[in-house]
Amino acid sequence: MIRVAILGASGYSALELMKLLLRHPGAEITALTTRQTDAKPVSEVHPSLSGRLDLRLENLSPGQVAERADCVFCCLPHGASAAAVAELLPRGKKVIDLSADYRLNDAAEYEKWYGVKHSDPERMPTTVYGLPEIYRERIQSASLVANPGCYPTSAILALAPLLRAGAILPSDIIIDSKSGVSGAGREAKSHLHFPECNESVSAYGVGKHRHMPEIDQVLTDVADAEVRVVFTPHLIPMDRGILSTCYAAPTGEFNEGSLLGVLKEFYANEPFVRVSSALPATKHVSGTNFCDITVRSVRGRVVVIGAIDNLVKGASGAAVQNFNLMHGFDETTALL
Amino acid sequence: MIRVAILGASGYSALELMKLLLRHPGAEITALTTRQTDAKPVSEVHPSLSGRLDLRLENLSPGQVAERADCVFCCLPHGASAAAVAELLPRGKKVIDLSADYRLNDAAEYEKWYGVKHSDPERMPTTVYGLPEIYRERIQSASLVANPGCYPTSAILALAPLLRAGAILPSDIIIDSKSGVSGAGREAKSHLHFPECNESVSAYGVGKHRHMPEIDQVLTDVADAEVRVVFTPHLIPMDRGILSTCYAAPTGEFNEGSLLGVLKEFYANEPFVRVSSALPATKHVSGTNFCDITVRSVRGRVVVIGAIDNLVKGASGAAVQNFNLMHGFDETTALL
Amino acid sequence: MIRVAILGASGYSALELMKLLLRHPGAEITALTTRQTDAKPVSEVHPSLSGRLDLRLENLSPGQVAERADCVFCCLPHGASAAAVAELLPRGKKVIDLSADYRLNDAAEYEKWYGVKHSDPERMPTTVYGLPEIYRERIQSASLVANPGCYPTSAILALAPLLRAGAILPSDIIIDSKSGVSGAGREAKSHLHFPECNESVSAYGVGKHRHMPEIDQVLTDVADAEVRVVFTPHLIPMDRGILSTCYAAPTGEFNEGSLLGVLKEFYANEPFVRVSSALPATKHVSGTNFCDITVRSVRGRVVVIGAIDNLVKGASGAAVQNFNLMHGFDETTALL
Amino acid sequence: MIRVAILGASGYSALELMKLLLRHPGAEITALTTRQTDAKPVSEVHPSLSGRLDLRLENLSPGQVAERADCVFCCLPHGASAAAVAELLPRGKKVIDLSADYRLNDAAEYEKWYGVKHSDPERMPTTVYGLPEIYRERIQSASLVANPGCYPTSAILALAPLLRAGAILPSDIIIDSKSGVSGAGREAKSHLHFPECNESVSAYGVGKHRHMPEIDQVLTDVADAEVRVVFTPHLIPMDRGILSTCYAAPTGEFNEGSLLGVLKEFYANEPFVRVSSALPATKHVSGTNFCDITVRSVRGRVVVIGAIDNLVKGASGAAVQNFNLMHGFDETTALL
Repeated sequence: MIRVAILGASGYSALELMKLLLRHPGAEITALTTRQTDAKPVSEVHPSLSGRLDLRLENLSPGQVAERADCVFCCLPHGASAAAVAELLPRGKKVIDLSADYRLNDAAEYEKWYGVKHSDPERMPTTVYGLPEIYRERIQSASLVANPGCYPTSAILALAPLLRAGAILPSDIIIDSKSGVSGAGREAKSHLHFPECNESVSAYGVGKHRHMPEIDQVLTDVADAEVRVVFTPHLIPMDRGILSTCYAAPTGEFNEGSLLGVLKEFYANEPFVRVSSALPATKHVSGTNFCDITVRSVRGRVVVIGAIDNLVKGASGAAVQNFNLMHGFDETTALL
Repeated sequence: MIRVAILGASGYSALELMKLLLRHPGAEITALTTRQTDAKPVSEVHPSLSGRLDLRLENLSPGQVAERADCVFCCLPHGASAAAVAELLPRGKKVIDLSADYRLNDAAEYEKWYGVKHSDPERMPTTVYGLPEIYRERIQSASLVANPGCYPTSAILALAPLLRAGAILPSDIIIDSKSGVSGAGREAKSHLHFPECNESVSAYGVGKHRHMPEIDQVLTDVADAEVRVVFTPHLIPMDRGILSTCYAAPTGEFNEGSLLGVLKEFYANEPFVRVSSALPATKHVSGTNFCDITVRSVRGRVVVIGAIDNLVKGASGAAVQNFNLMHGFDETTALL
Repeated sequence: MIRVAILGASGYSALELMKLLLRHPGAEITALTTRQTDAKPVSEVHPSLSGRLDLRLENLSPGQVAERADCVFCCLPHGASAAAVAELLPRGKKVIDLSADYRLNDAAEYEKWYGVKHSDPERMPTTVYGLPEIYRERIQSASLVANPGCYPTSAILALAPLLRAGAILPSDIIIDSKSGVSGAGREAKSHLHFPECNESVSAYGVGKHRHMPEIDQVLTDVADAEVRVVFTPHLIPMDRGILSTCYAAPTGEFNEGSLLGVLKEFYANEPFVRVSSALPATKHVSGTNFCDITVRSVRGRVVVIGAIDNLVKGASGAAVQNFNLMHGFDETTALL
Repeated sequence: MIRVAILGASGYSALELMKLLLRHPGAEITALTTRQTDAKPVSEVHPSLSGRLDLRLENLSPGQVAERADCVFCCLPHGASAAAVAELLPRGKKVIDLSADYRLNDAAEYEKWYGVKHSDPERMPTTVYGLPEIYRERIQSASLVANPGCYPTSAILALAPLLRAGAILPSDIIIDSKSGVSGAGREAKSHLHFPECNESVSAYGVGKHRHMPEIDQVLTDVADAEVRVVFTPHLIPMDRGILSTCYAAPTGEFNEGSLLGVLKEFYANEPFVRVSSALPATKHVSGTNFCDITVRSVRGRVVVIGAIDNLVKGASGAAVQNFNLMHGFDETTALL
């Protein structure tokens, strides 16, 4: 039984993580942390866990966490996460970091997009990006895994096979993403107030979203050629789900059938990617760790669409998938 | 042309009020206030008014407001409102107060429910309650009108005719109300964060909501007998609308047809109350000043249901209706 | 391994049932039926099951189903269900009927509310009502279980302990329920068209809903005194969840604390009922088999509130709970 | 007073049209038609109009309509519309056609996209496309106006100024649109059933939507060069609103500021187009005839975004705007 701790347990990703781990036969949640000083029962912070998990959220130091847990899921904000990771790894703990702190390889790039200096830049270049469909082997042997962002997961899974197959040009990729509101976190903010975002759709962070360099980096690695995407996220009045509609230029002779074939072959043995000729809907992946993908050819453009649940495959489901890989469990444990 | 000011112009009621007043041929908005120190264009606070109203929200004193306006709509929080009203009335201004400050007649009752001492208790007993369907004549000659709460409007309009006709007992009235989220105001709060209240329904403030004594007071006046209701508000995942399902005990011989007849007769000449045998839906009154009402008889209980738009008939529409009555305009001006 | 069939597998209850059963270590889904003539893959009817269940929906006779399955979940419409049950039981099959066909004990009452003659009236009086919290022992030894309606589950679980303890009067009970739209089934209808029911709340079937006599019957049995409730269902713009706000008259000396004590004691050992002093929200039980309950005392009235997920505890979760009881599995298997 | 008739008065566009026309001082609604045989009061078909419009929906011939009305709004399905128009124009009536029948200039193109032969091909090439911001002068003198589609309005208004100014290339335009569900009409369909499209987002009709050739045609005319767009519509869980995010390649030296300047200059005197540096949200144009537009420059791509209410500026508001132009009313009458 692996003892697991969750740092920063008051948010939506942490809640989803607890729900998944409560079903995991090989994991036991032993510590939950918060930066607030008064310890609260988890059922007060997350009423849906009432009667399911008898733990308190406590203000614990990394050292205290290390005593109670073998593996740590880090749901802290960026910046705070790196500080904790740097204390946990030397104590021999495995860490799955759901923050953005170790996703980018380059400290300068991190500072440019996140506006703060990284406190642990040495680990950045070698930390594995926790997208099993691309980096499974490296994840299996990793002590630290950078869990991918939600938008990147939806877009990378849709585009990577076509890039690797040389079916689309690495340049000239547009990603138009639509996300449910839980992706913005649990903190109450004016623009996420129900009557503000209900019955409305809008773009935000156009050309400035921090997931853009993350997508660039992974797709560049996959394509072995520089990729710089145009990424436009949109906020949609629903709780969860991301749909990414990606536009790319074909390199040549590919048609809709052959593009679909490339996707199907790439994901033939993947337990959580479903390629189909049908157009995906976020409802069909809601609450699951699946990513549904299809592709269309329109007037010389390739349109490839990926759908995920932002809190599961886009966050906590992927984290459990990584946990399974890192500890030798069947990859689908607790996820089906 | 009546020059009007709106105090506390950053909220939802104020926005709705501006939209209505922009259609009013006899009113001109001349001042908007905020308690924030830096003046902001209204289009920045309410982007939907961009290009429609070229005013700034300013931190104005009541004296400054009095110089610019003949009539003042007060959308301040309770407490703050009474302070402003007490300065405006002596300057000869007419005031329509959308706060709760002058709804209750009794200062002790106010203090009990609102937790603060009233700063202008002398005016409380004589201020007219601005529900035209009940107090039209008094409104016409008033300088100060207390605009009704949203829940009270939906429940009082449904129950008043039956009480006045002696068709239901004044005791033993239950009001189960369902409201859209805009009724809770524009301030971002945890429980109104989109992913918290979307896809969920819950009761709140059971037996403790401040609209309960307001309903008691008006229905007691209408029935000429003490009414003390059981009132349960619920939060519903939608922007606007209130449906109040009211349960009462019949006094005797009334059946569904005769109860409907009582309602139809009471509202025969009312421009904004529609009595029908059909069950109302908030969608059918959304964006309008209408209140839709029907009645059913179930196993010896009277079930009377009222539906309104909480921001229009439940707030700003009623305020404009009162404005029309106070200034001799046709009562429906700007409201159809 | 128990082989299970699902009759009428195209609806929402059937989908939820399949998702739960796919997690059940002791059950294997072996047959899915439809009344349509062409067999379709389940992933075409329910895209969310793509890659998870490789079966077709087939137009099978009860005899064919009996060959493939040991236990049958019946999700057929009322009327059709009784016909199938009558053929399956003599073949030694266990049946969990999610339709309304065996919920009422009395054939005349059934005909009055459902408008059709019951084809299997002999079994009606003795069929056990599948609410484990009330009838656990009888369910364990039953071959046929009538799975409760969604509204009744939410209301009965809230009221039963107070009735049995003599804390509230059996007469004078009002149940005001709010339901998400999935409760109305999967068939496209005008009033369930998205732009019709989104952003709207309305009552329907006031005093005429078929779940009213079902609630009466069970509460009468629990109270050992005639109960005839006033029941008002409302449609709320959300996918799933029911909140039932129940109003009753106390018999005497009970206060809020003692009422809560009655509820807590009654459900002390129940795995799926959570009694709390906090007001429940349907979001906190969404996707779970839990029922959250609290109670308030308001001006001499008892207000007891129950929240469930209509598709889980209100339908398929309860069905799996019954399945577990009937087959000797731990009652919570596949449900946590 | 212009007497107006509405053909096909049971849908959402017709309802919106009636609400607007009821505020119009120069228009009187005199006839409403339906293809159903039994005449129904409009308040039965549209309960929100109860007490506001005392007319019946009748199965009238074009000849009967011509007797009662001077101007006809045609809300019939494509195909049916052309048949009615061909009978109304010779009788000297003015017609605003909200169907797609006269939007395309070319009968072969129409047949290709709509799958039926056009019954009135002669009028197609000369019918004016009713987008006042582009074709105001021609509309003023027209007897027949083809009211634009909702998606085209949002995309054309965003792109036209940049194309006309030569700021973007006519080739290589991608339009990613998100629409509320009312755009799909009032007929209950499986994929528009509340629990199917609520809490979900999906693309549909990728590369096959009938609004694609309509956008091509108008933008080609505006650019005076062939435009063939890639158009992807998406369904969003909300009642109304369209946001179109358009991606284009700049022709050269333009930056974000100069692109915004082009838009502001083009729409300097337009009453219903608001150009701003802020990102638009459909909520801010909901229920209005406004189109909000902004532009961004991202990594060498121009991203221009337009937001409208699909039922107002995207349908009935534009129709009233055209009505005003055709009859010499102030263009904003009944629209502010």
